[in-house]
Amino acid sequence: MVKVIIIGSGNVAQHLINALLKSQKNGDPIDLVQVFSRKAASLNGLIESSKIATNYNQLVHADLYIIAVSDDAIAAVSNQLPFKNRLVVHCSGSFPLGKLNNSNRRGVFYPLQTFTKNKEIDFKTIPICLESETATDYKLLEKVAQFISGKVFPINSEQRKALHVAAVFVNNFTNHLYQIGSDICNEHQVPFEILAPLIEETAQKISSLSPAAAQTGPAKRDDKNTILAHENLLTDENQLKIYKILTQSIQENGKKL
Amino acid sequence: MVKVIIIGSGNVAQHLINALLKSQKNGDPIDLVQVFSRKAASLNGLIESSKIATNYNQLVHADLYIIAVSDDAIAAVSNQLPFKNRLVVHCSGSFPLGKLNNSNRRGVFYPLQTFTKNKEIDFKTIPICLESETATDYKLLEKVAQFISGKVFPINSEQRKALHVAAVFVNNFTNHLYQIGSDICNEHQVPFEILAPLIEETAQKISSLSPAAAQTGPAKRDDKNTILAHENLLTDENQLKIYKILTQSIQENGKKL
Repeated sequence: MVKVIIIGSGNVAQHLINALLKSQKNGDPIDLVQVFSRKAASLNGLIESSKIATNYNQLVHADLYIIAVSDDAIAAVSNQLPFKNRLVVHCSGSFPLGKLNNSNRRGVFYPLQTFTKNKEIDFKTIPICLESETATDYKLLEKVAQFISGKVFPINSEQRKALHVAAVFVNNFTNHLYQIGSDICNEHQVPFEILAPLIEETAQKISSLSPAAAQTGPAKRDDKNTILAHENLLTDENQLKIYKILTQSIQENGKKL
Repeated sequence: MVKVIIIGSGNVAQHLINALLKSQKNGDPIDLVQVFSRKAASLNGLIESSKIATNYNQLVHADLYIIAVSDDAIAAVSNQLPFKNRLVVHCSGSFPLGKLNNSNRRGVFYPLQTFTKNKEIDFKTIPICLESETATDYKLLEKVAQFISGKVFPINSEQRKALHVAAVFVNNFTNHLYQIGSDICNEHQVPFEILAPLIEETAQKISSLSPAAAQTGPAKRDDKNTILAHENLLTDENQLKIYKILTQSIQENGKKL
């Protein structure tokens, strides 16, 4: 039986709590013995109150402590833990393992997904990126990760940094392009919902085609007339700048292939 | 019974042929009487050979002629049709209605989706944007569109132009961001498949949240340390330029809200 404690009550913490409780209910040899949060109220309905700790001194013994708090609070939390030589991991894509307090055994348990409050998500499909200082600790992390997800990867801090930047491109920046699409639609009194199936299919294509094979459009086929017409239509300077730079990048990319 | 003829045998033409035949099979009062293609072989297995025309003079009478060819061939095709005053539409997002030959009644039948060869797609979910010169023609287009899709919109040429630019942002440019994500992963020996669930969830979020509400990440929360770390990691100048411009755009956007 692997005893786990989660520290935090935000978005990621709540999704992890649900995933671990589900695994436990399914009969996996795992036990979520405690959740730590200064704000016990935010865990209402998620876990029985007897399992909530609001003070670090209340923390009981566990095989694994998962710090699921915002990046800028991770170091402080790891410094305040009142024990030594236990396995303590964080869930961040951009925080190096080495910045965790080294009085405990350190590791990373990074579920790579965008979590939305109150939107259920199937944890089984979420890749979990693991890192640890020893092979024994890795095995324990792997065991827990495999209980809740079908996709577990060993990823070191350098790789995780790159992965996090890549995630910014395919998630944050992609969402911003949706925003621009929505702004253009609003400006021309076109319902943005018309683009929803296109957005979904664009993402789904990637599961069967490489991005290079999936690339289409005026930039890809060097259709200068259409590109010029688009540039003339864009009245927002910022949108025009982004249109030009991405068009050029697709064209440069085409030359490399 | 609405008699329809499709002109073309490419990607969009083939998907339309399948959708119309399916509608016909389901008992809708529609009849795909002919398909025109110079390359009859490319229609093999799609439709019985007696219904394939390879010469414009073979074209029979129909209520609706759908030109489904590449943008730069539309005008030429519309000029070569050997009849007058019939309803002729094209399927393009960026071609103006006014550039069709005016000896026939003109219209647009634009299914807004990214079509992949040999990848089946549920036409029922594809928005079809319609335009015509008269209300009577619009009604006929609407009837046909509703047979094959649950989402039909009246969109004039100006709106369609804007929609097409917006589609470039959410499809072509988004796919290019996937490409950059993939390049970064390859450079750091990280499997790109780790990002697949994130890509899918990013797209799915948009069906329940506005892009503004769905925006997350270091640019959105003005996390300067993470942004700097990302910029330091990017060795490709082009990637760095795109990172900076999109980060800035997200930040500017945040100020506007």
